[in-house]
Amino acid sequence: MESMHWANNLLMLLDQTLLPGKIYYKPCCDYHEVAEAIKCLRVRGAPAIGAAAAYGIVLAALSAGQATQKEYIKQVESAGRFLKATRPTAVNLAWAVDRMLGVMTQAGALGAEDLSRVLLEEAHKIHCEDVESNRRMGRYGQELVPDKAGILTHCNAGALATAGFGTALGVIRAACEAGKQVSVYADETRPLLQGARLTAWEMMQDNIPVTLITDNMAGYLMSKGKVDLVIVGADRITANGDVANKIGTYGVAVLAKEHGIPFYVAAPLSTIDLSLPDGGAIPIEEREQDEVTSFGGIQVAPAGVKVWNPAFDVTPHRLVTAIITERGVVRPDYLQNLRKLAFEQ
Amino acid sequence: MESMHWANNLLMLLDQTLLPGKIYYKPCCDYHEVAEAIKCLRVRGAPAIGAAAAYGIVLAALSAGQATQKEYIKQVESAGRFLKATRPTAVNLAWAVDRMLGVMTQAGALGAEDLSRVLLEEAHKIHCEDVESNRRMGRYGQELVPDKAGILTHCNAGALATAGFGTALGVIRAACEAGKQVSVYADETRPLLQGARLTAWEMMQDNIPVTLITDNMAGYLMSKGKVDLVIVGADRITANGDVANKIGTYGVAVLAKEHGIPFYVAAPLSTIDLSLPDGGAIPIEEREQDEVTSFGGIQVAPAGVKVWNPAFDVTPHRLVTAIITERGVVRPDYLQNLRKLAFEQ
Repeated sequence: MESMHWANNLLMLLDQTLLPGKIYYKPCCDYHEVAEAIKCLRVRGAPAIGAAAAYGIVLAALSAGQATQKEYIKQVESAGRFLKATRPTAVNLAWAVDRMLGVMTQAGALGAEDLSRVLLEEAHKIHCEDVESNRRMGRYGQELVPDKAGILTHCNAGALATAGFGTALGVIRAACEAGKQVSVYADETRPLLQGARLTAWEMMQDNIPVTLITDNMAGYLMSKGKVDLVIVGADRITANGDVANKIGTYGVAVLAKEHGIPFYVAAPLSTIDLSLPDGGAIPIEEREQDEVTSFGGIQVAPAGVKVWNPAFDVTPHRLVTAIITERGVVRPDYLQNLRKLAFEQ
Repeated sequence: MESMHWANNLLMLLDQTLLPGKIYYKPCCDYHEVAEAIKCLRVRGAPAIGAAAAYGIVLAALSAGQATQKEYIKQVESAGRFLKATRPTAVNLAWAVDRMLGVMTQAGALGAEDLSRVLLEEAHKIHCEDVESNRRMGRYGQELVPDKAGILTHCNAGALATAGFGTALGVIRAACEAGKQVSVYADETRPLLQGARLTAWEMMQDNIPVTLITDNMAGYLMSKGKVDLVIVGADRITANGDVANKIGTYGVAVLAKEHGIPFYVAAPLSTIDLSLPDGGAIPIEEREQDEVTSFGGIQVAPAGVKVWNPAFDVTPHRLVTAIITERGVVRPDYLQNLRKLAFEQ
C-alpha cells in the first residue's frame, strides 16, 4: 500500500484519516491541497510529509510556469514557506522543502519548463531515496531483533508513514524477511489511533502476528515478560540524541528502562537535526481539543472540559538504547556519533 | 450525584455507561438485574459494586420471602455466589456479599420478613459506612495535598465509584474544602474512558479545575513539572501492599517514580485483602475485544485484529508512597502496618 504516488501532474495521496475502513487516494492539484492534507493528517509520518511537501513544491512550480523567472522563484519559495508552516515538529518537512528550494537555486538559469522538470526529478529522488533508506535501515535494524521476539511499537512508523516499507515497521518487516518469528504489540496511540488504524492494519496485510492494546496496557504487558524490545520512529532527533516522536513515546521509553528492555528508534538521516542542541529546543505541536474529547467522531467527554493535547513528546537520549539509520546503528555517545555519521559518506 | 439509592423495594442504579450524556437511574427489581449492571459496568468502582451487591442480596431475600426458611437461605446464598461471580478483581464485591450472608447466618432464627428487614438494614449500613469512610479518608488524605498542587488521577475513584464523595476524588474534594487550590489532571482511561466521562464530569460539577489528557500524555505532563502528586483508588490491596487498580495505573506509578512524584492510593479497609500475600495472587479480569476495537459502536481497528484487554493491572508496593484509609495513612512496611491497621479498633 503506497502512501502516495505522482500521476498526470497530480499528487495522489492515500487519505489515512479514512483507514482502515476506506482506501481512497485524494488527488492534490496544487500545493494548498497538499498543505491541507498534511495539516489534517491525511498524510502523516515524518518521512511521508517530507516527500508530500516535495511534490507540493512541484505543484507550486507547475502552476507558476507562465510567470517571469523572478516571479516563478518567488511563488515557489512562498509555497515552501506555506508548506513548512503546516506542522512544526517533524524536521523532515523543512528538510525536504529546503532541499527542493536548494535545487531550484542551483538550477537558476533554466527556463520554467526545465526548472519544473528538475524539481519533479528531485521530488521523485526524495521519494525513492526514502524507500531505499528504509530498506537499508531494515537490514541494519533487524540484526537487533532476536528470533521469537515480542516487539512493542507506538503510533505508526510503517509504510504509511514513509514513502514505503517503513522505519520501525521496516525493521520488523526485515526481521521477518530474514526468517525470524516475531510477535508485534501495537499501542493504539490515542488520540488519533494510528496504532489501531494503521499499524495493526499494516501488520495484518503482511501476515505479521500483531496484538492491539490500549496505550495504558504497555506497562502491564512488559511486567508480564511479553516485550523483548521496543522500536519506534521519530519526528526529530537533536544533536545529543533526544528524540521527538508521537505523544506517549516518552512514557513507553521510561517503562522500557524500568523493565530493562532495549528501546530503539529507527529514523533516516533526514530526521536528524544537528542544528538543535537538545530536545528542549524542539517545537512541540499542540492540536485541537476535539481530538481528545471525542472518539471516532463521537463526543465522549463533558462539553466544555479543558484539554491538553500535545501531539508529540521528547524522549531524552539516556533512555534510547540505539538509533537505527540508513548508515548503520548509532549508540551513545550520540553527540559525537550522530555528528560523525552525518558527515561521513 | 448518587451512584445508587434504594426506593420502594427497588435498587435505583445510575447507569454510568450513559454518562455524561444522559442521567438515568435504572431500577433493578431482582438480583439478576444487579448482576447484569455490575457485569456491564452500569455500576463500577470497587466500593460501589460492593454496595450494589449488598442491595442485590436484599432483592434476592425479598423474592425468597414466601419460601421455607431453608429454601430462603439457599436462594439468598445462591444469589450471593451469582453476584460474586460477576467480576473477579475488586474484593469489595465478595466482602459485601460475605458480610450480608454473615448477618443472615447470625440472625438465622428470625422469620423471612424480619430477616429481609435485617438484611436491608445491613445493606443501608454498608452504603452509609462507605460515604462516612470516604469522608474520613478525605480528612486524612488531604493533609498530603499541598496548596496549589497539580494532581494526576487515573480512571474514576469518585462519588460515582463509591456510595458517595469518592476515595481518590474524595481526598481532592477534602483538600478543596480545606481551602486549597488544586489543578486536577484526569487520564481519559481507555478503553472505557471513565476518566473522560466520569472524573472530568465530577470535577466540573464541583467546580474543581480539571484538565483532560489521554493516558499516554501522563509522562510528558510529569516531565513538564505539572504534577506534584498522583492519587488513585484501588480494587484490591494485598497483605504486602501491592495494589490492583484500573489498567494503566502501574504505568502511571512507574512514571511517578521516574519523576520523584509521590504516588498515593486511597481505599477503604474493605478493599484490603489480607488473605492474599501479594499482587501475583489477584485474579485479573480480561474483558471483551470490542472494548478496544470500537467505541460508541464505531469500529476503529481492522476487523479480526487480535486484542489483549486486561481490565486491571498490579502496582507493586515499592511504587506506592502511602495508602490512605479511613483509619489513617499507612506507609511502608505495608506487610506489618496494614495488618496492624486491620486489627485495631
